[in-house]
Amino acid sequence: MKITLAQINPHPGNISYNCQKICDAIRKAASEGSDLVVFPELSVTGYPPMDLLESQKFLKLTEEAVNIIAVECQSIAAIVGAPTRNNNPKGKRLYNSALFLADGKVTDIISKALLPTYDVFDEYRYFEPCDTFRTVSYKDRKIALTICEDLWDEQPFNHKKGDVSLYRISPMEELSHLNPDLVINISAAPFAHNRLAVKEEIFKSKAARYRKPVIMVNQTGANTDLVFDGASLVIDNQGNIKARLPFFTEASLTICTDEIESIQKSEISPVPGKAELIHDAVITGLRDYLLKTGQKKVLLGLSGGIDSAVCAALAVRAIGSENVTGLMMPSRYSSEHSFSDAVRLAENLGIKWEKIEIEKPHLGFEEALKPLFEGTTGDTTEENIQARIRAVLLMAYSNKFGYLVLNTSNKSEAATGYGTLYGDMAGAISPLGDIYKTDVYRIARYINNDKEIIPENSITKPPSAELKAGQKDTDTLPPYEILDEILFRYIELLRDPQTIIEEGFGEETVKRVVKMVNSNEYKRYQAPPSVRVSSKAFGSGRRIPLISGFTF
Amino acid sequence: MKITLAQINPHPGNISYNCQKICDAIRKAASEGSDLVVFPELSVTGYPPMDLLESQKFLKLTEEAVNIIAVECQSIAAIVGAPTRNNNPKGKRLYNSALFLADGKVTDIISKALLPTYDVFDEYRYFEPCDTFRTVSYKDRKIALTICEDLWDEQPFNHKKGDVSLYRISPMEELSHLNPDLVINISAAPFAHNRLAVKEEIFKSKAARYRKPVIMVNQTGANTDLVFDGASLVIDNQGNIKARLPFFTEASLTICTDEIESIQKSEISPVPGKAELIHDAVITGLRDYLLKTGQKKVLLGLSGGIDSAVCAALAVRAIGSENVTGLMMPSRYSSEHSFSDAVRLAENLGIKWEKIEIEKPHLGFEEALKPLFEGTTGDTTEENIQARIRAVLLMAYSNKFGYLVLNTSNKSEAATGYGTLYGDMAGAISPLGDIYKTDVYRIARYINNDKEIIPENSITKPPSAELKAGQKDTDTLPPYEILDEILFRYIELLRDPQTIIEEGFGEETVKRVVKMVNSNEYKRYQAPPSVRVSSKAFGSGRRIPLISGFTF
Repeated sequence: MKITLAQINPHPGNISYNCQKICDAIRKAASEGSDLVVFPELSVTGYPPMDLLESQKFLKLTEEAVNIIAVECQSIAAIVGAPTRNNNPKGKRLYNSALFLADGKVTDIISKALLPTYDVFDEYRYFEPCDTFRTVSYKDRKIALTICEDLWDEQPFNHKKGDVSLYRISPMEELSHLNPDLVINISAAPFAHNRLAVKEEIFKSKAARYRKPVIMVNQTGANTDLVFDGASLVIDNQGNIKARLPFFTEASLTICTDEIESIQKSEISPVPGKAELIHDAVITGLRDYLLKTGQKKVLLGLSGGIDSAVCAALAVRAIGSENVTGLMMPSRYSSEHSFSDAVRLAENLGIKWEKIEIEKPHLGFEEALKPLFEGTTGDTTEENIQARIRAVLLMAYSNKFGYLVLNTSNKSEAATGYGTLYGDMAGAISPLGDIYKTDVYRIARYINNDKEIIPENSITKPPSAELKAGQKDTDTLPPYEILDEILFRYIELLRDPQTIIEEGFGEETVKRVVKMVNSNEYKRYQAPPSVRVSSKAFGSGRRIPLISGFTF
Repeated sequence: MKITLAQINPHPGNISYNCQKICDAIRKAASEGSDLVVFPELSVTGYPPMDLLESQKFLKLTEEAVNIIAVECQSIAAIVGAPTRNNNPKGKRLYNSALFLADGKVTDIISKALLPTYDVFDEYRYFEPCDTFRTVSYKDRKIALTICEDLWDEQPFNHKKGDVSLYRISPMEELSHLNPDLVINISAAPFAHNRLAVKEEIFKSKAARYRKPVIMVNQTGANTDLVFDGASLVIDNQGNIKARLPFFTEASLTICTDEIESIQKSEISPVPGKAELIHDAVITGLRDYLLKTGQKKVLLGLSGGIDSAVCAALAVRAIGSENVTGLMMPSRYSSEHSFSDAVRLAENLGIKWEKIEIEKPHLGFEEALKPLFEGTTGDTTEENIQARIRAVLLMAYSNKFGYLVLNTSNKSEAATGYGTLYGDMAGAISPLGDIYKTDVYRIARYINNDKEIIPENSITKPPSAELKAGQKDTDTLPPYEILDEILFRYIELLRDPQTIIEEGFGEETVKRVVKMVNSNEYKRYQAPPSVRVSSKAFGSGRRIPLISGFTF
């Protein structure tokens, strides 16, 4: 049997667009003699549809789209993902289903058993888990059809391998009793640079354990914070990867189930290094956010520092230099190199830039506040005012000329609250919000691989917010090399501070860092969405009560 | 058997505080001869603990607290709510449990079967559902011990009564086969003004159906967005309410299970009217947000309009006039009455106020932007700048003197995006963010019941943002009487636009309103938390993809 893996980038909610894309792919595969095309999880609606699933109109349009797609399936079959109704009056009203389409109609529906409800996932909010298991037969083959998490029952819990599973049942174990010929998994698994190996291991181990080939088709593209890497897999019945589709792009591949062993080695797209992966993920996140919200142009403040420089370079790679504008907003505290480094960056990137001195509004605020601030001494108040003036200017330019403002904060800043709410924390989306400062440097180096794009001086000078004379980040924060190591353990690895101290980090530093993280939940609550590239990003995947009375 | 309902206000994460409060209540009840004290759901941790449940230290402290509480239970028993570990290696690692404490130890653990995972609830994120049922015996009584949602299996789905249940099992039906003597339900059910009747009906119908008295003990107080009304109930085996504890305050009541029929009528706290309920809920939300984040003083902009006036009045009632400061920030477009109405309000409330003209920073921005805006015509850009200057001033005052800034937006504005991001949408918490404008007027009238507090002119003048000459809200929005009716149907009742049109609202208006709601998800994403008073507030209870391609 010839199976086509159709790794597509659907648009959540835009059902007619997704329907068209799926129909096109089916026609193409049919013309190439394929027997079956496989699309990702919830491919008709796009993943995650979130509360759109509560709209009856949305569900009706989805059902209509499935019927339109089914009509394409005459000489060929297709597996698409879509919500289906639960006809039992008890339980959640929907299932997260894989629909088997053949002979112009829906011939079978298999629904997801394991509903991820942790981190960024909320599937039990919408779906009833399916608790019966059967295979789908097609062209004399018995297919174990599974949906994403259905194969993830043995994933390491809290980054610790063990005998613990988040689920009481193992769909693959159940299906194995039915002796299927192969396993198909339709997925919408978001990218996390530190979970790639775990992910592939999950599919490889299922294939090896049950001696069945596994075909996994993953969504690609990005939806707000979530980036989907694609990287769909064909794994032989020994657990060897025989094909990997490319990362972060639509792609398709047709394989013959009888000839999995003989797939050309060139079908295994290589796994890029960490910096390249994150780089590509952010570009995908940015490009799709603009595309899917119908916007074209972005604007960002260029400070001459590393964060805004990397943001600008990534934006140019995502949407082209003609769609990126930089605003230089020097103040009385800005050093000479801030402006010159920013100009050099803009020239290297070939983007439009403008300069606005913030001195006049800065003076305006000082005069307005003078009677009230009489007798007080300078503190972060005055620093925040400058950061907020810049946000007002960026938003004014954005409002007037129709730009989307990029937020240039990184994850180290977001974690420690080293940023001004409604100031440098403003923006529509945060490309670096899930990237620690030390990784921002790595990405800068990667961007400069062939030639200087990020000015060398932006990389080598000590980081400073330049909101008062002679300021350095290290006045307030531990050195980033130490800070980021502590943050990664605390945030991504969910380790308690005591454990981190026992791992060799200074007690006072760990406690100070953890306190900074916890006392800034209120700021992050109002932060823009970040493009998620790790296994634990700020945002919907990490939910700490603002009023928490807990001392970690 | 004498049972004490202990309706408490725990602080999520502050386990030692909760432990102390519970121990005190047990001692008091014991001294009064009670046999059993009942506390709310997750009373040891506070509800909702959210991702604090992922900290091992947090779980360990919780277990230690339970043991400390158990020691108090010598001559008396207690039921407390706490997470407990799932010892089965399969399934979520925790249960949401009711612990029965007697003889100085934990004598029984009953875990929650129905885990609400919809709207603001995410319980399946943390907890494994329990699927076995048994009663707890104490003093020759068999108690059907249930946890909140366990009795809600028949709640109307999507506001429509029907034969549909979100759950496959009915814990009460299962327990009824064991012939219990009474039903105890420990709850943490958030307040929603439009769900009060539904809520009481649920408990009354269970009591009547199974011919068992029901004792329901609910949490009170507020945790960020969620307000818990308390209003704990004693219902006889005919389904009649025999006692209702007061709304929004800690309270306790001891009843004798053999004498439920003869409870004094005076134990039924009355249900306040809608305006009073919302008024009290917001005060609770504000007071507890400050208390639980360790803050004392609030600051808000006073425009002379109704929203800021109601906010200020509610803040004064929550934390006292000495802790509330108003900032008047008139502009070149402010009318005379804006300032005089604001001063009058401040005087009526006895709060401190200050005046800062925004003209100087306004001019500063105009001058700074002049070269870039040359040749453009005025639009909302210039309006937004003024709103943002006010936010910068409020934040500056807040930063300098340690105030928490209140956001004064209402739900009609939040819904339609009639507000400026980083401008009037700024603030730490939004007291009116879940209250439609027409209800803001109702609350103003309620506040003014005895004497004028909100200046009459603030109530009667046409609402205006005063960001340009002669501006009125109705230049942009439909009249609030119509707008709010449409919004309530669309947001709270989840009705599709076509249904709302069929209910008699103008097609063009409905479509325009729905489009405004949908095109402003990005603004609300960055809005502060709102005190939730309805069944569907913006925030964690309503999750629409920012990149949605769906046309409702």
